[in-house]
Amino acid sequence: MKRIFVAEIVASTGSFIEQFQVGEVERRLKKDGQAYLSLTLKDRTGEIDGKLWDIPAGLTIAEGEFVKVEAETGTYRDEVQLNIRRIRQLGRDEVQLEDFLPVSKRDPNAMLSELRAALGTIGDGHPGLREALLRMVEELAPALMNTPAAKSNHHAYLGGLLEHVLSLIELAERVCTHYPELDRDLLVAAAVLHDIGKVTELCYETVLGYARRGTLVGHCVLGVEILSRYSGMLDQATREHLEHFIVSHHGQIDWGAVKLPMTREARVFHLLDMIDSQMAIMNTAFDHGTDGNGFTTFVPALRTALWTGHC
Amino acid sequence: MKRIFVAEIVASTGSFIEQFQVGEVERRLKKDGQAYLSLTLKDRTGEIDGKLWDIPAGLTIAEGEFVKVEAETGTYRDEVQLNIRRIRQLGRDEVQLEDFLPVSKRDPNAMLSELRAALGTIGDGHPGLREALLRMVEELAPALMNTPAAKSNHHAYLGGLLEHVLSLIELAERVCTHYPELDRDLLVAAAVLHDIGKVTELCYETVLGYARRGTLVGHCVLGVEILSRYSGMLDQATREHLEHFIVSHHGQIDWGAVKLPMTREARVFHLLDMIDSQMAIMNTAFDHGTDGNGFTTFVPALRTALWTGHC
Amino acid sequence: MKRIFVAEIVASTGSFIEQFQVGEVERRLKKDGQAYLSLTLKDRTGEIDGKLWDIPAGLTIAEGEFVKVEAETGTYRDEVQLNIRRIRQLGRDEVQLEDFLPVSKRDPNAMLSELRAALGTIGDGHPGLREALLRMVEELAPALMNTPAAKSNHHAYLGGLLEHVLSLIELAERVCTHYPELDRDLLVAAAVLHDIGKVTELCYETVLGYARRGTLVGHCVLGVEILSRYSGMLDQATREHLEHFIVSHHGQIDWGAVKLPMTREARVFHLLDMIDSQMAIMNTAFDHGTDGNGFTTFVPALRTALWTGHC
Amino acid sequence: MKRIFVAEIVASTGSFIEQFQVGEVERRLKKDGQAYLSLTLKDRTGEIDGKLWDIPAGLTIAEGEFVKVEAETGTYRDEVQLNIRRIRQLGRDEVQLEDFLPVSKRDPNAMLSELRAALGTIGDGHPGLREALLRMVEELAPALMNTPAAKSNHHAYLGGLLEHVLSLIELAERVCTHYPELDRDLLVAAAVLHDIGKVTELCYETVLGYARRGTLVGHCVLGVEILSRYSGMLDQATREHLEHFIVSHHGQIDWGAVKLPMTREARVFHLLDMIDSQMAIMNTAFDHGTDGNGFTTFVPALRTALWTGHC
Amino acid sequence: MKRIFVAEIVASTGSFIEQFQVGEVERRLKKDGQAYLSLTLKDRTGEIDGKLWDIPAGLTIAEGEFVKVEAETGTYRDEVQLNIRRIRQLGRDEVQLEDFLPVSKRDPNAMLSELRAALGTIGDGHPGLREALLRMVEELAPALMNTPAAKSNHHAYLGGLLEHVLSLIELAERVCTHYPELDRDLLVAAAVLHDIGKVTELCYETVLGYARRGTLVGHCVLGVEILSRYSGMLDQATREHLEHFIVSHHGQIDWGAVKLPMTREARVFHLLDMIDSQMAIMNTAFDHGTDGNGFTTFVPALRTALWTGHC
Amino acid sequence: MKRIFVAEIVASTGSFIEQFQVGEVERRLKKDGQAYLSLTLKDRTGEIDGKLWDIPAGLTIAEGEFVKVEAETGTYRDEVQLNIRRIRQLGRDEVQLEDFLPVSKRDPNAMLSELRAALGTIGDGHPGLREALLRMVEELAPALMNTPAAKSNHHAYLGGLLEHVLSLIELAERVCTHYPELDRDLLVAAAVLHDIGKVTELCYETVLGYARRGTLVGHCVLGVEILSRYSGMLDQATREHLEHFIVSHHGQIDWGAVKLPMTREARVFHLLDMIDSQMAIMNTAFDHGTDGNGFTTFVPALRTALWTGHC
Repeated sequence: MKRIFVAEIVASTGSFIEQFQVGEVERRLKKDGQAYLSLTLKDRTGEIDGKLWDIPAGLTIAEGEFVKVEAETGTYRDEVQLNIRRIRQLGRDEVQLEDFLPVSKRDPNAMLSELRAALGTIGDGHPGLREALLRMVEELAPALMNTPAAKSNHHAYLGGLLEHVLSLIELAERVCTHYPELDRDLLVAAAVLHDIGKVTELCYETVLGYARRGTLVGHCVLGVEILSRYSGMLDQATREHLEHFIVSHHGQIDWGAVKLPMTREARVFHLLDMIDSQMAIMNTAFDHGTDGNGFTTFVPALRTALWTGHC
Repeated sequence: MKRIFVAEIVASTGSFIEQFQVGEVERRLKKDGQAYLSLTLKDRTGEIDGKLWDIPAGLTIAEGEFVKVEAETGTYRDEVQLNIRRIRQLGRDEVQLEDFLPVSKRDPNAMLSELRAALGTIGDGHPGLREALLRMVEELAPALMNTPAAKSNHHAYLGGLLEHVLSLIELAERVCTHYPELDRDLLVAAAVLHDIGKVTELCYETVLGYARRGTLVGHCVLGVEILSRYSGMLDQATREHLEHFIVSHHGQIDWGAVKLPMTREARVFHLLDMIDSQMAIMNTAFDHGTDGNGFTTFVPALRTALWTGHC
Repeated sequence: MKRIFVAEIVASTGSFIEQFQVGEVERRLKKDGQAYLSLTLKDRTGEIDGKLWDIPAGLTIAEGEFVKVEAETGTYRDEVQLNIRRIRQLGRDEVQLEDFLPVSKRDPNAMLSELRAALGTIGDGHPGLREALLRMVEELAPALMNTPAAKSNHHAYLGGLLEHVLSLIELAERVCTHYPELDRDLLVAAAVLHDIGKVTELCYETVLGYARRGTLVGHCVLGVEILSRYSGMLDQATREHLEHFIVSHHGQIDWGAVKLPMTREARVFHLLDMIDSQMAIMNTAFDHGTDGNGFTTFVPALRTALWTGHC
Repeated sequence: MKRIFVAEIVASTGSFIEQFQVGEVERRLKKDGQAYLSLTLKDRTGEIDGKLWDIPAGLTIAEGEFVKVEAETGTYRDEVQLNIRRIRQLGRDEVQLEDFLPVSKRDPNAMLSELRAALGTIGDGHPGLREALLRMVEELAPALMNTPAAKSNHHAYLGGLLEHVLSLIELAERVCTHYPELDRDLLVAAAVLHDIGKVTELCYETVLGYARRGTLVGHCVLGVEILSRYSGMLDQATREHLEHFIVSHHGQIDWGAVKLPMTREARVFHLLDMIDSQMAIMNTAFDHGTDGNGFTTFVPALRTALWTGHC
Repeated sequence: MKRIFVAEIVASTGSFIEQFQVGEVERRLKKDGQAYLSLTLKDRTGEIDGKLWDIPAGLTIAEGEFVKVEAETGTYRDEVQLNIRRIRQLGRDEVQLEDFLPVSKRDPNAMLSELRAALGTIGDGHPGLREALLRMVEELAPALMNTPAAKSNHHAYLGGLLEHVLSLIELAERVCTHYPELDRDLLVAAAVLHDIGKVTELCYETVLGYARRGTLVGHCVLGVEILSRYSGMLDQATREHLEHFIVSHHGQIDWGAVKLPMTREARVFHLLDMIDSQMAIMNTAFDHGTDGNGFTTFVPALRTALWTGHC
Repeated sequence: MKRIFVAEIVASTGSFIEQFQVGEVERRLKKDGQAYLSLTLKDRTGEIDGKLWDIPAGLTIAEGEFVKVEAETGTYRDEVQLNIRRIRQLGRDEVQLEDFLPVSKRDPNAMLSELRAALGTIGDGHPGLREALLRMVEELAPALMNTPAAKSNHHAYLGGLLEHVLSLIELAERVCTHYPELDRDLLVAAAVLHDIGKVTELCYETVLGYARRGTLVGHCVLGVEILSRYSGMLDQATREHLEHFIVSHHGQIDWGAVKLPMTREARVFHLLDMIDSQMAIMNTAFDHGTDGNGFTTFVPALRTALWTGHC
């Protein structure tokens, strides 16, 4: 557990010992011709430059590794930097991942319990649906507790997928009470399944990124594959409807949908997913602050700046 | 009040006297060189061909007019048609518009009451908002009770706009309970205001269509104009937010938005509007029937066929 | 086995007994008020109108069914039609499907042998690849022998998929001799796998069309599913490469690709697939004839008319 | 009135006292741990870095403010910068705005007179049109004399809108003599009205930018609103035609038009507006110089580089 | 010279002898099994159906040929048609082309004189330009007098290109007086040259259409080729500017431009060409009539209906 | 012939004398107010900064010139730079262009011989085709030996066009053996002709770039012009086919095609051109290295990163 985070380090911080994750590493020459290392040191609050002026024999440090450093603050061209006196590589089990990666504010176990409870309310209209989803959640639980909903964009932190799924379930339940022609149990299932492929598409061992197979195949295909392990528990029409949710949830072909949504539930689910992801994007944008008129800077994902509604 | 509707006329119907609206009118020649009239006769259930073999001196009939005819059924090339013995033009006050135009299943007075009640729940967060909307509804009540939500597409019948607005208010209320950061009163206002320009954009005197100014200017600009009559009752930020709902509710520039939605409420409202209009489009499509696999024919507004979810 | 095909029927053909597939069926009224049936009768050479003037008690005939009719040729408004004296429904086993559906000119067994031989030449660079593909072909052989490559567009006839695959393998082999950096075995695998999902996407029992799951999920996802049955025989990188061929072979997102092609082989394969399918489309267009300057009519799939190159 | 402009300051300029507008302001630390201010100082000719090494107690300076500084030139990393000895904030009335914002080369009063004269030539074909436009110009005169035609892009300087309007009137008059079917008075009106909403859309108090309502609603809607104050003086068809000019003048929906232009005058006006704005963009681009072949650098607004026509 | 035109033929016209151009020709069977010909007969005012009940031995008639017929009017299903008693093919020199193809209202010789006069006003700023254009016009005169400006769309009649060119020259002269930075002589040259390739792209011997090379290469490339015969008379920069007009005059790549316009003159010319062609399209649309509100039907080339500006 | 290349220079290189091409040149001031020159020095391996602290009287150096410098290595802010003691301009004939511009690995004379041999195999199906192409290659030989296939993108080095053409000929020959309906001789001709306009579109005297006429007109039009010198040797249909290859080889209008490809050979050639250019782009991308998973960085020309196929 870290005590000093990057965001807190100032010129007057002085000497300390702390864990960091290594970003870029570059070997450079001092004026006397001796080599030194210029490193970026990171944790979940930001990054800072560091210099290791004397490189111990045999040291090799790569991007993504965790290290413990003994350092002192200094300034270079008006920026604070760290002069590193000692550095030691750490094993994956010597650090707590949530010190280094952004993480949901909600407790993953609590979220998992909430999900189980929600799935427990699924009725018998689609025989096997409740059991299939509960089994899937049980088997994927360790991954689900960590998977972010995206590498960047929205809910891009450990546990983000679970947060997004729970929010969608609540939202879907409210919307279903208004449109009785919607099948509530299918919408709950869609919430759990639509992004389930992200469990294998994304990697979040030491940094948020894409797994190789995720890059090559995408989370829609991976999601259908995960679902197929449980499809023997479902009747054929329900199975196809669930697959259709996964492949159509992006809503338009050029937004990445494999198929346009073709059922009431698939079309409404696409729009609910838009609502929940855009709410998250907007909250993040407003968190970064607004100008005197209440406007954020340009938000690329929405191709516009945003307004708080107050001046 | 009509007794015989087009959809009920068959070859064996025989002679009758009834009101119709005139569609296309064409003057043609019989083999003996004498002229006769070929007309399309319409009501809200469909249209049928008619022939007036002997044209009374001085008769001129134009598309859109209402007539009373004495006619007898016959067949021509396997189609039923009407041989018209007498025809008389009717004044606008001799017919009931709902015999000829499609009309909402809900009672317009009941819908108006429901709307007043909903607006009455608006709080004091935006001073004057409740009063401004109530006054607007009162002043537009006669038009609001008839305006369709569109010429075709969704809610394309007398009273359709009011139906769409009430549905959006209910939907918005449910969604707001899930996202406390949303301003519920603004979303209710958006529901009432977003399409209010259709009151003047569309005409629905004798057929559903576009008024000249509606064609030239569009309902977004017309809606802002209507709002401006009440904007003196509002503070400046609220007024601008309401105007922004109107000009941004289509969501994307190439879907007709004047501005991209820039607030939480404006973005969510656009998506709620999509949900409600697509639900209406889908219900209409499914009403037209499905094939053995549960698929409709291609639905142009959604660029896909639809599936019921059952085989 | 049919003896008389639609394309051969002329006004002077006279009386005959023959099998047809039923297209549209409509119940109409004669001038005397009695009902008769107006049917479209089809085989693989075209379609012709027929009238059943006296409907036997209890007869119900639906689109897609096979019938045996006793009929006589007549003309109606300058078109030849059939006056049907007797009609009897046929079981699926009383007809030969290739009388009614378009079919490849090549023998399916010969094509299958050729495919086995081609797969046999795959080397050991990707352990298990040769065996996996051979096993897949064996298990899918009955379907493969019939599957068309598309509902319309190119190779839209029974056996069309196999024809397209064999052509692509030959083409890939030639191109690989020019670019040694291409992995020939992977391109052969891509040819077999890229459209393998069409085995379940399309249905071709009585008419060419889409199966329900095919419509809802698409042949890319279905292809990955088929591949997954054999992926245990492959190393991980090879498996992912094969999956990537399937999901990327349309080349561009808005042409239906789930992912853009990211390897040399995937990019080249997409272009080879374009060559082979466009050659087939062009051959079909030229078969329909050209005008005096050597131009076809407009070909929608290519968004242009075509020129033979000769005047 | 400034005497020394940024563009004239060189390393050897030495000490001086002068007014500037403040750009970015940053508080930094000197090596001794004391704070200093790093500021950007601007006027209409450019911007220069300044350092205020000793910050007077209580000083707070924000972006956009005007200041008077006593400074001396120095260099830092090959760039000239100002070492500021004293700094004092100025009131809005102590500066001349045209020292800081780009401004038209033409005298605004002369332009306004020219506009009045042009409007005076409008005939009686559209009763009230001449009077309505003259009254509007009178009431908006103070704003009109300053409004730029855009924040950047073309005529982006104080008085730019008036310059653009006058140019369009002259251009329209010439084109009307060629096409007698065009209504000359309507085109003159279109020139005055099409961008009139920019009077409230843009702000240009201390910097060129967008007003909040301008950002949320856009100049088309704002223009129709301004026109509505005078529409009681016009017949209905003329009023709608003028509104149509405003909402259609961008010519294509994805270029920002609310409606496609639907009259001869609206279509021609859109193209005349394109000609005049592109001429201004091109003149600005050529003013920035060309390479040895007569080419400018890439001009983003036109998506191409430009050629003078001479080598 | 024809005396009776298609547009004048009514049921009571009776017997006559007249020239027509043959449209579609179809051989059909009478009820007695004998063949007859069903033909479409055309002239510049329209087309009418004809039946040749007795086909003379050895007669073969193809689409596009000219014929002289002896016929009598009759009616068939409420349409007037011609019963043809005798028919004889005509040579190309027995007819006057303007009886059959639409033709400009202006005299081609007068237009050519006007063009020569306009070119004569070109100054000496671009040595050789005046002489080159005059020589080109002289050498292409016979074709220029007939070439339409398009197959359909605008100025789609014999002499239409010349009409369009003359209008553009006048328009350009007016616009140049407003922008002194424009090179008037280059704009005049652009008017003559931009569509000059249509002289060979289009064919208009017996019908308006595209020549084979026109279809395969397009009028931009053909125009540059024609210009190249005279480019020896020009300096290099002028030659390249003229070529650039031809290849850039469509203004945008997806509107068919080979290059985006890169000079003041090329950009303005593109917009003038838009003005003149749209004015012609709009005039044609209004000639076809408007509804009670002054609206035309939808005009595909402009993707909108048009409004006259009057109710 | 250079001995020391930019890519080899390190801080410890010390003093040397060598040729470079001059990139950007800037005149700056030293702290003592004296001017010095800051230059970029380039060769085909990269570029390096240099400072000329004492500017000899009368020296003017422009971008693109070749110079010989006497210099010593130093460092500035961790970057190696050159302190220049003496500098002298070189004539175009004192340097070897291939020291400064990227150049094909293949010998241009050998490539030219290979091309002649390939053209010699063209048969007599298109009379004159073989002779026309051979004559064209002879007359353009000096240019052909140097022309790159592009300024950047693919084959962007001296001799690149010839390399691309030879590769396409070989590829076309292989593909033709698979599709007997393809005209092999036309495809060989297409390979030579499709980009022949680049001989004049590009300039590559001292840097790779676009010639003025190339920028204004484009290589498609220039290619048709070159072909026209030899078209008298060809029959009309062959000539038009060859022209069609040139104007259609980009395949889609918005990819720069003047016409969509309309023949079997033109469509296939477009796709072969895509294969060969994408293979070159991919080889270049992989040459720049891949990450631990075998992925390159994002390749703009292909809008994706690439994967080697190995982890």
